[in-house]
Amino acid sequence: MQTPAASKTKNRVWVVENGKVRSHTDSLVTEEPLEIRLIAGGVRRTVAVTMRTPGNDFELAAGFLYTEGVIASRHDIRRISYCVNPDTDGSQRYNILNVQLHRDTLPDLATLERHFYTTSACGICGKTSLEALRLRGCSAIPPGPAVSAQILCTLPEKLQQSQRLFQRTGGLHAAALFTPFGELLTVCEDVGRHNALDKLIGSALLSERLPLSDCILMVSGRSSFEILQKSLAAGIPIVCAVSAASSLAVQLAEDFGITLIGFLRGERFNVYSGIDRVIANP
Amino acid sequence: MQTPAASKTKNRVWVVENGKVRSHTDSLVTEEPLEIRLIAGGVRRTVAVTMRTPGNDFELAAGFLYTEGVIASRHDIRRISYCVNPDTDGSQRYNILNVQLHRDTLPDLATLERHFYTTSACGICGKTSLEALRLRGCSAIPPGPAVSAQILCTLPEKLQQSQRLFQRTGGLHAAALFTPFGELLTVCEDVGRHNALDKLIGSALLSERLPLSDCILMVSGRSSFEILQKSLAAGIPIVCAVSAASSLAVQLAEDFGITLIGFLRGERFNVYSGIDRVIANP
Repeated sequence: MQTPAASKTKNRVWVVENGKVRSHTDSLVTEEPLEIRLIAGGVRRTVAVTMRTPGNDFELAAGFLYTEGVIASRHDIRRISYCVNPDTDGSQRYNILNVQLHRDTLPDLATLERHFYTTSACGICGKTSLEALRLRGCSAIPPGPAVSAQILCTLPEKLQQSQRLFQRTGGLHAAALFTPFGELLTVCEDVGRHNALDKLIGSALLSERLPLSDCILMVSGRSSFEILQKSLAAGIPIVCAVSAASSLAVQLAEDFGITLIGFLRGERFNVYSGIDRVIANP
Repeated sequence: MQTPAASKTKNRVWVVENGKVRSHTDSLVTEEPLEIRLIAGGVRRTVAVTMRTPGNDFELAAGFLYTEGVIASRHDIRRISYCVNPDTDGSQRYNILNVQLHRDTLPDLATLERHFYTTSACGICGKTSLEALRLRGCSAIPPGPAVSAQILCTLPEKLQQSQRLFQRTGGLHAAALFTPFGELLTVCEDVGRHNALDKLIGSALLSERLPLSDCILMVSGRSSFEILQKSLAAGIPIVCAVSAASSLAVQLAEDFGITLIGFLRGERFNVYSGIDRVIANP
């Protein structure tokens, strides 16, 4: 159950520079909708349509369903396949995925559809969002590995070197897994930050490598609630980002024992939570 | 119907640099859920829960409902108000908005809930996504203004200077409107790219300044399908981004006559579509 990596599109572009215009052919990051359909007991239902960069589509679907709490393990999935309809043309052929489940009925999808992070009828806030994760069964990450500051500082460059497509398009987010020794394990790319992480976690789910309790996650953008929520679902103890962290990302990291690092650039970084996993001066 | 601008949160943070650790208090961009409820004819329904930076909440709700095609004008809205429940505590008090409509029944929300950009039962792709916009009533942007390359090159710096919160938190996306002479009209900030643009368009909707046919939009991140789709709904002829454009963003811009500019940095930029509105050497 593996699909090829992210793709690009060729396009004509005009470069305007110091009063001059020249035209050339450029590579753009491909963005196409993907419809994810769940099938159980003969019933079929669309659960999401997401704009994504084609590539690693099976991983994206599996990671999305897992991190959103729709499935609990790889064994819930019977089969993932593209829905190829003879009436559709080339560009439509690989934009619908059928995810067949082993169970007889579709799971409850209300939470997923309404993007609901609340547990109470009368209130919604950061606190209730974190409480909702607890009710879904998320618990604190075990202590796990510590990592040296020197190794952490090498991750951004390794991430960038591994971004095959970014170098051509400049338009892709990436999520990468590293060992505590700084070795790159997997990297996934997508036009969407969350999709890149879903692809990464989905890839681990499909190859039965969850939870990722010995891994460091590095993402190309910022850390938001959703990035941390997905990391928590995958059991990742250390999350690093090139840019800033939001208030709710920090609160989630503190509550669930995740080490959250931001502004990881050059020889410097911020630790927002879980400093005990960072060895500043080994 | 105006709400205050985006907010920040204070937090303790550890800075690790060259083997040393120091702790200080840092400003984080605030991220909190916002629940948007529609009310019509006595019936109430939650239409979205989005993670956002508090501030300009009324504008965010109005812009979201407008760019997603749920409302067609300011006059569809009777009243926007926070749902303040005496049982909820401080942090929950301003996270639910009631949007009361003039109509007697709730509009059809199927499209909104499923994030559906498709018109056909058997296929989904970039082409069908663009076709869906046409069926929703979107048509090509009229020729409108032209703008000089010199003025375009001044926009990124003006955007950055106007980002009040970004300078403190480093974690916010921004969307700003400029005149063709490079004067800043409005800027909105949010932890989410789409929210920043919804706030900007919602602010124009509530003050009855739509369509924005004489404006240039500048966004801090990339141009995706969704950024272009929202710009089209607001009638914006020129869209500029600091970073790359996706394939589907370019296709939408070409199909609907939008000038799309990317990698606007220093004295150089890329024009992906609608070069006729750019005066390279006046």
